[in-house]
Amino acid sequence: MATIQNIADRLGVSKGTVSKALNGAPDISETLRKTILDTAVEMGYSRLRRPKNEARKFCILTENIEYQEPHQFGYDFIIGFRQMAEPSGYLVDVVPVTHKFQKEIPYDVFMLQKDYTGALVLGFSLDDPWMKDFETSHTPTVLYDNYVPTNPFVSSIGIDNNEGMALAVAHLKELGHKKIGYLGSSFGSHIMQVRHKAFFHAMKQNGLRADPSCAGTSYYVTHCIEKHLPRLLDMGMTALICSHDLIASAAIVQCQQLGRNVPGDISIVGFDDLPISAYTSPSLTTIRQERLELGKCGYYALDSILNKVYIGTIYLHAQLIIRNSTGKCP
Amino acid sequence: MATIQNIADRLGVSKGTVSKALNGAPDISETLRKTILDTAVEMGYSRLRRPKNEARKFCILTENIEYQEPHQFGYDFIIGFRQMAEPSGYLVDVVPVTHKFQKEIPYDVFMLQKDYTGALVLGFSLDDPWMKDFETSHTPTVLYDNYVPTNPFVSSIGIDNNEGMALAVAHLKELGHKKIGYLGSSFGSHIMQVRHKAFFHAMKQNGLRADPSCAGTSYYVTHCIEKHLPRLLDMGMTALICSHDLIASAAIVQCQQLGRNVPGDISIVGFDDLPISAYTSPSLTTIRQERLELGKCGYYALDSILNKVYIGTIYLHAQLIIRNSTGKCP
Repeated sequence: MATIQNIADRLGVSKGTVSKALNGAPDISETLRKTILDTAVEMGYSRLRRPKNEARKFCILTENIEYQEPHQFGYDFIIGFRQMAEPSGYLVDVVPVTHKFQKEIPYDVFMLQKDYTGALVLGFSLDDPWMKDFETSHTPTVLYDNYVPTNPFVSSIGIDNNEGMALAVAHLKELGHKKIGYLGSSFGSHIMQVRHKAFFHAMKQNGLRADPSCAGTSYYVTHCIEKHLPRLLDMGMTALICSHDLIASAAIVQCQQLGRNVPGDISIVGFDDLPISAYTSPSLTTIRQERLELGKCGYYALDSILNKVYIGTIYLHAQLIIRNSTGKCP
Repeated sequence: MATIQNIADRLGVSKGTVSKALNGAPDISETLRKTILDTAVEMGYSRLRRPKNEARKFCILTENIEYQEPHQFGYDFIIGFRQMAEPSGYLVDVVPVTHKFQKEIPYDVFMLQKDYTGALVLGFSLDDPWMKDFETSHTPTVLYDNYVPTNPFVSSIGIDNNEGMALAVAHLKELGHKKIGYLGSSFGSHIMQVRHKAFFHAMKQNGLRADPSCAGTSYYVTHCIEKHLPRLLDMGMTALICSHDLIASAAIVQCQQLGRNVPGDISIVGFDDLPISAYTSPSLTTIRQERLELGKCGYYALDSILNKVYIGTIYLHAQLIIRNSTGKCP
């Protein structure tokens, strides 16, 4: 890994100048500071020792949302992360970043400029510009529900979606269901692709038939509900597994509007256990993502990278939460 | 989780008696102590608070081997684990256990009796009797290269074998190889099954053809080398990926005895980066398992379970180590 001396040698300036530029001293011109930062990033420099007397800082990067409301998915996640990071001496900033912002400044430059030791990244989709930067970044970074291979500085966390899907299918099978369909939205997200695959894998593991027509997937929830749901009902499905709780909750309402009883005629399973899941009618059987624990996992992964233990992936155990949207096969 | 009071209530004895039995006090009869321990285990009791003034203890369970020699796979693994556990106040015992021993005493009973807070399990095969116990155990347990689903007290660690296999295939493809075979032994091991699957997955991801005949797998290395290796050579393979370094090292020798030059005629890739890999002739290109880091991961996983963060799986990033057993496709 490049040192301050290496950067100084490359640019023909003194170590002191490089150090000043990296630490935001006021007596360095903006042009020189930019050149030094760009070179530092290009050479793979990352700040492991901290300016004296200054707290170390992590940031939680989100896609343009601050998660300040308890009903939002990221709320508990952030609390879990802070419960681990702050007692260990880190300040934690939540930093929403737009696509536009990500296009304007490379990820590593942003992290160096803002003096962040590492980042936890929440809710990025595959087309977020920094997703490309993560492939070669030298900054300790933990991606929730996204995956970048082989870069030792980047690790992935999430629940074990294969385990979760296996629990969902096994639960329905135990209730006598054989014709099980899958409703998915948001193909722009890594994790939706993972769950889609996991559905077919779990069906096979349970000895149940599922050809591609058993899954209905669209980018938009409405499209999914209006187009694929009636088709799956016409195919005689007695149970549906949904890629996330919002689509499951919409599916319950739509089934009821089509005159079907949930779970009398059709059982519905969600994914995530969002706070709303307990308040749908009937309440939703779903696969829980333990959000506080996920936040803590984020800290474990960052801490391990800083200790040169290059964890690539951490999966939490998935949990099946049985409520009232699933019942015996009619 | 059951408390001492629950156990006392179930057996109609005092809390003090249960506590004495669990802590090995001498004034409890062996019969009563056994009944109390068995009931404690049955009710899912596990010791989270420690007897006063006593160090907490972890054990590393191995399948009948102590790993006291630096060339053995488990040696660095154990050092890495101790480097994390001991500064955190744990004593670490290495405990080899035979099949016979495992059959005589249930896992949770053993752990309670010996007063271990948790275990790291190395080198167990699928037919080790305690593998069944891990499915329902209430003791914090980390399995290296084995997997038990849904039990929150049991977590799995290892390298990302899919990532490793992808690196191996991509490396060979870059050298111009298209006809790539796979040699595997030890189907009694979970991880060998994982690597076998990962081979076909990586070939597909790289747009290369591999039907089942491209893999030769047996329980024994010798069978693999004598039967499958010549067959794969006859099929015109120009490269072989082996499920572990010992088979790769035997494959190099066998190819040479059959008059083939390695890597001139055939390239060979191993898995694990055992200490011997640098000393085969030619030295072996392989996928590295960073053993010190794996040991540290084992501690991270145990520590997380004790903090009620139920990590199911941790994968380390895999690394490709390029040595001299791979070269351009002839």
